[in-house]
Parts: sequence; C-alpha cells; structure tokens
Amino acid sequence: MPRYRLTLEYDGTGYAGWQRQRDQPSIQQALEEAFGSFCQEDVNLVAAGRTDAGVHALQQVAHVDLVRDWPPATVRNAVNQHLRPRAISILEAARAGADFHARFDAVERLYRYRIVCRRAPLTIDLNRAWHVPRSLDAAAMHEAAQGLVGRHDFSTFRDAGCQASSPVKTLDELGVTGAGDAIVISARARSFLHRQVRSMVGSLVHVGEGRWTAGDLRHALERRDRQACGMIAPAHGLYLAAVRYPPEGQA
Amino acid sequence: MPRYRLTLEYDGTGYAGWQRQRDQPSIQQALEEAFGSFCQEDVNLVAAGRTDAGVHALQQVAHVDLVRDWPPATVRNAVNQHLRPRAISILEAARAGADFHARFDAVERLYRYRIVCRRAPLTIDLNRAWHVPRSLDAAAMHEAAQGLVGRHDFSTFRDAGCQASSPVKTLDELGVTGAGDAIVISARARSFLHRQVRSMVGSLVHVGEGRWTAGDLRHALERRDRQACGMIAPAHGLYLAAVRYPPEGQA
Repeated sequence: MPRYRLTLEYDGTGYAGWQRQRDQPSIQQALEEAFGSFCQEDVNLVAAGRTDAGVHALQQVAHVDLVRDWPPATVRNAVNQHLRPRAISILEAARAGADFHARFDAVERLYRYRIVCRRAPLTIDLNRAWHVPRSLDAAAMHEAAQGLVGRHDFSTFRDAGCQASSPVKTLDELGVTGAGDAIVISARARSFLHRQVRSMVGSLVHVGEGRWTAGDLRHALERRDRQACGMIAPAHGLYLAAVRYPPEGQA
Repeated sequence: MPRYRLTLEYDGTGYAGWQRQRDQPSIQQALEEAFGSFCQEDVNLVAAGRTDAGVHALQQVAHVDLVRDWPPATVRNAVNQHLRPRAISILEAARAGADFHARFDAVERLYRYRIVCRRAPLTIDLNRAWHVPRSLDAAAMHEAAQGLVGRHDFSTFRDAGCQASSPVKTLDELGVTGAGDAIVISARARSFLHRQVRSMVGSLVHVGEGRWTAGDLRHALERRDRQACGMIAPAHGLYLAAVRYPPEGQA
C-alpha cells in the first residue's frame, strides 16, 4: 500500500483536538471520513503532534496508507473537496517511503503562541489568540525564557495526564517578540511534554506582568513540581507551526 | 447631550453589513442594542463607512450621543460587556465636540484587501481573505494599479446601487504588496464609491493572472462603464483599516 505524507492546516476551534474521541468531533475523524468518502477505504492517519482541543495547526504533518496508488495532487484536491466546509485543509500531499512515520521520525517541532494585549475584546482574532487585557513586557519575557532553554526536567510544565516516559526534554528555542499589542512566542524542540508550551507561556505571562522575575521562573523549573507552574495558557492561542524530518535516507 | 467618538473593530462574517436592515443582523443594530442595554436609551450610531455584508473593520469610527455624561472608558468597557459574545468591539471611546460627525468630517479612509493565493482551501483565514487558487503577479498588479491613482471618473468601478452624487473621486494610493502566498492591497482616498475597492481589486486580479495588461486596466477606467469592470472581489477579504479626521479645531 502506498504511503502518503500530508501537510495539514486547521482551525482547531470547535474540535476536541487531533485525536479521535468517542463523542466529540476531532480533526483526525474529519480527515479520515473525508478520505473514506474519496476512496471508499477505512484509513488511519498518524500525526506528528496530537494537538489539544482548540489548538490550531499551520503545518501539521501526518501519514496515511491508501490501497490505490493515487497521484498525490489528486489525493490533496479530492480530500479537500470532501472536507468542505470544514476549516481543515491538506496543503500538500507527497508519496513517502513505506517506513516513513509522521510521529516517530520527526526531529523537530515548532510551536507558535499568539497573545494580544489590549483592553477591548478580540474580534478578528477571536479564538486565534489569547486575549490578555493588560500590557506585557515582551523583553522581560524573552530574557526570562532563556532560562528554560536547554536540557531540563520539565516536570513543572508537564500536564498531569502526560504519558511521556521521561520529563527530561531539550528545549532548543523559546523566543518572545512583541510588535504593537501583539506578542508571539516561538518554542522549538525535538518533542514536548503534554501542555508544555501552554504551561511555559502561562508562566511567562506572569513575568510579562511583572509578578515573576526571571529568577522566579528559573526557580519554578528547578522545583520540578506541577504546583510551581504559573498557569496554563488557553489552547486557542497555540499553533503547531512546523515539523521537521531528516533529509530522505538519513532517518 | 454629550457626543462620543468610537473606534470600532469587527468581524463582518454573518452580518448584513454596518447599516440596520429590517430582517437581518447588522453591526449598527448589534451596537445600538448593546448601548441600549447599558444605558437604557434609544441611541443612534453614525459610522464613517457603511461597510457591506461580510466586510470587516480594523478601525471603523462612529459617533453617538448619550443622555448621561459617562466617562468614556466606562462606555467602552460596559458596552463591550453587553456585546459579548459578538465579534464586535469598541477599541476606544472618547468625548467629541457636539459638531463632530463621523461620516461627514472624515478626510481620509484607508481600506486593506487580503488575498491568499494557493491551491488548498483556507482554514485560519476562512472568511478573512479572498482565496485565489492561482499564483498572482503582485508586482504587475502594483504597477497597473498606479494607473488608477489620481482624480478620475470611476464609473467603471462603481456599483449600480451607488448613491454618490458624482462618480469623480481622487484615489490617493493604491498599493499592492506580496509576501509568500499573501497579497495585500491598500486603497486610500477621502471617500470611495460603493464597492469601488472590491471592483478595483477584482480587476487587479485579472492583471495578476496575466489576463489583463496595465493598459487594459487603464482602458477599463477610461470606458467609464460598469460593464468594463473585471469582476467584484468578495466582501470577506476587505477591511476598513483606518479613518482620518482633521486635527481638533480645523474641521
């Protein structure tokens, strides 16, 4: 069976997240149903990141096996047609090697988190950014964030339901940039613990508000205790922005 | 009665436009009802631009008279509270002179039009940009657009239902910039004819596709005939981005 690699974009609003749920609509289910309508097969999609309810994707990657050897552009266009009017889209489909695995082969994941700081409620950005009705010091957030970069035990920033075998991860980048009333936080690592990005963002907002110093953030990390986490930023500001794989043949 | 100047942001999706309609929800009605809930008065809002159904605003300006002399921040915060969960927001409220008129005093309006050129349907930008499933030559569009700048009879780019007394307008700026698969068109003038921006954008897309030359666009303008207009770009890519007034006391 030919394997395809899919690059996906979606608005996570109204979905229970990537993974199939018994009673709630999921991104995976919507895609698998659209594939079923297209090729009359029961297919199973495997994604690089199982995004939570409300989390968006700019470039999620998934793989799928199909019985027939369709041209990749046909797969993309036909499944997109069956996805309408859902806000889920296949940006690209490509043939992949039979051993390509969207989740296990990924060597880097990039998340972006968007915050809008202003008094007035959001309209155009509703469900697409975290509305914080106070100003935040982006420079202080960026400086404090550097204390989280590197190889650490991230138990403080790990959801209670996280199933990872170890809380130790290497965070390659955690950058905070501000422009006008918008703040964007970029987090890059081989992999993340469950809700790690949202947990780090919530604590960084404490720094941006001046309630925490960079030392407080570092101390929270060193506590290795979920109770030391500042707060968990809401899902609707988070975007899975990119997933990187080794060049072909080096996996 | 104290007069207030309001700066408004809204997602026009699902609204019949700014102006009150008998049977359809409008931005004006939603705001007037929220004001009514706040101060128990029948109020009437006057906006700088009566945006069409589906058109968004980043900075619409309106004025309103209230019986009581509320602090402007109270007006903003309380009415925003009554607007929930609608995607309409008062960014700023300020006291205005009794003779300030949001529509007649405006000396400049800036519109932005967003296009995303790609094969895959939009998700995050659904209803927030025009999806054109072909690539467009932004540089050619920008060059051709310069032929529309200046004082002209814009009958070609004027909706049949336009109520302006004259089709002659002065277009101060029409710029086209491309970045990746996104194109943004900026149009600036004291005032526009009904659907002028969307009509110009639709014709510019013909240029971007290579179907029209800059000469064809110029020729369409010179025809002064609605039939010469290329097509009308959809409403959901259009944003009223700013309205400018003379400095206080110079109106």
